[in-house]
Amino acid sequence: MKLLDALHSQNHGRPPVWIMRQAGRYLPEYRKIREKHSFLEMTHTPELAAKVTLQPIQRYELDAAIIFSDILFISESLGYPFEFIDGVGPVLNTPLLPKDIDNLQKQQPLDFIEEAIRLVKSQVSIPLLGFSGAPFTIASYMIEGGSSRDLKKTKQWLFHQPDNFKRLLEVLTDAIIENLNDQIDAGVDAVQIFESWASHLALPQLRQFSFPYLRKIVENVKAPTILFGRGTAGYIEELAKLHPGGLGLDWSCDLAHMRSLISSAIALQGNLDPQVLFAPEKTIRDECTKILKNMEGDPGFIFNLGHGILPDTPPENVHILIDTIKSFSCNKSSSLISSS
Amino acid sequence: MKLLDALHSQNHGRPPVWIMRQAGRYLPEYRKIREKHSFLEMTHTPELAAKVTLQPIQRYELDAAIIFSDILFISESLGYPFEFIDGVGPVLNTPLLPKDIDNLQKQQPLDFIEEAIRLVKSQVSIPLLGFSGAPFTIASYMIEGGSSRDLKKTKQWLFHQPDNFKRLLEVLTDAIIENLNDQIDAGVDAVQIFESWASHLALPQLRQFSFPYLRKIVENVKAPTILFGRGTAGYIEELAKLHPGGLGLDWSCDLAHMRSLISSAIALQGNLDPQVLFAPEKTIRDECTKILKNMEGDPGFIFNLGHGILPDTPPENVHILIDTIKSFSCNKSSSLISSS
Repeated sequence: MKLLDALHSQNHGRPPVWIMRQAGRYLPEYRKIREKHSFLEMTHTPELAAKVTLQPIQRYELDAAIIFSDILFISESLGYPFEFIDGVGPVLNTPLLPKDIDNLQKQQPLDFIEEAIRLVKSQVSIPLLGFSGAPFTIASYMIEGGSSRDLKKTKQWLFHQPDNFKRLLEVLTDAIIENLNDQIDAGVDAVQIFESWASHLALPQLRQFSFPYLRKIVENVKAPTILFGRGTAGYIEELAKLHPGGLGLDWSCDLAHMRSLISSAIALQGNLDPQVLFAPEKTIRDECTKILKNMEGDPGFIFNLGHGILPDTPPENVHILIDTIKSFSCNKSSSLISSS
Repeated sequence: MKLLDALHSQNHGRPPVWIMRQAGRYLPEYRKIREKHSFLEMTHTPELAAKVTLQPIQRYELDAAIIFSDILFISESLGYPFEFIDGVGPVLNTPLLPKDIDNLQKQQPLDFIEEAIRLVKSQVSIPLLGFSGAPFTIASYMIEGGSSRDLKKTKQWLFHQPDNFKRLLEVLTDAIIENLNDQIDAGVDAVQIFESWASHLALPQLRQFSFPYLRKIVENVKAPTILFGRGTAGYIEELAKLHPGGLGLDWSCDLAHMRSLISSAIALQGNLDPQVLFAPEKTIRDECTKILKNMEGDPGFIFNLGHGILPDTPPENVHILIDTIKSFSCNKSSSLISSS
């Protein structure tokens, strides 16, 4: 169980590896199911979600599965379901307004996720990850009604009605904690929280509208949590103070340097540029090896990309990535033996 | 000359302030000229460029002017002129291919920029800034043919033909140095280099395809250089080793923390979220004051936004920003006097 060992900073030999969006469109077997079913059908039908979750596990020697789901389903559980439109992304037909906070429904459990988790767990022995969006990120999607270049409506609300915005974050935080604990009860071994829009927010606002809610989630979720966001390297010390199980980082930092800034008790996850998987084999191996050497011997290192794998990634290049990590492991073990 | 003093880490009292894109669409007097002339006409006609450069100086008590121009004109000087299409941005009808490198024209001077600089200098006493895009950023625009979500073509080239890509960066670097020194000869007092797409590139690639060229520019330009990019806080120590006059930072970091990581000989510029300028007056003042207090007494601090001012910013809120900085100055001076 390399992944769980790493989340407790107790991994030896090669690092564990999993890939953000590893169950996804770059796999032909995924596209085959996607041709017949919408994204919402796939995520809401436990048998399909479980099948898709298992696809990358069957193809590659990965060290974790991650349940096929979406960061925004908390919104659905509060009565605001997103549609997912090809080429557009998630869309909420009636974006949330400040006056709507009191109308948010009491949370309904997302049974379909739990059922998919139970199906996957009955078929795999490697750890299974659950996940959710973070409160600020989900709030932003609900307020903007979908993706946004600049989160203008969200920031208007946040700057003009900060107390009201915080009430929304509190409702979301409680719903996320309940949902993640349901996922854990159904069988996931650890969870990742996506603060996907962290880089839109200035640090003084992150301190008010993100970190306190992340802290509450970390403290109340019953399994190790990995916090992921892009552009977070400049304040990693502040994230470390939230005491997560791990921090996922994008490609704009040197993981060994990040390690020097924070406690060895917190796992570090990352951080290969997903576009390296379009490079020639030698470059893929070289770029992976840079990261492996850089983090060599770190018992809390989890290999991953710095962001989700891209939809048109050649699947054979993922084999090269994983083979490089596993080969490196051998060298490392023998060097440890010879030097000890 | 507070700005130049700060660039030599010798400023006392309140910090100097200028605003990225301070000459721009948020000003009604700018929009009036823009109604009659295209962006290219405005930038290529020295009288118009000078007039627009002076507009924010006439309206606000800013500590620097910045010439009205574009980061991509180096491409034009090499025979690849961009068009600027409303709602789309810069467009190059024939994006650059690897085979085109040998066809890049010998550089033609961008006389219109120099003439605009001379016109501005004859009318202002505050420092005037020149600027250019950085080699990697300009190369990316030329290869993609405009803006891009993921720089996919650029990264294909970079990973598959790195030596050829470096030849392009060398051509651009030499052209940028020559152009910036022309701007300095015409009268600018300092220059800013925009590595606008730094956050698209992983740190191992920045070390190969950005930093060495930035270093060459810093070493060969005859006036202080400010390096600006977004998402750079995680590797600020590496940028500091390029020995620029200053580093411009986005809003995702704490400037005092950044200061603790690098030499006091390098100015730090930033980093208010431009969207704070849509907040109520009290919030604008509070958020400015946080930064001012945080950097209080730092002789190398330059107040700016963390990115360009947004086109629909209420112009009166820029008055609030500048007034806050100037009022803070008074408090600071008196406290210095009383404590010394």
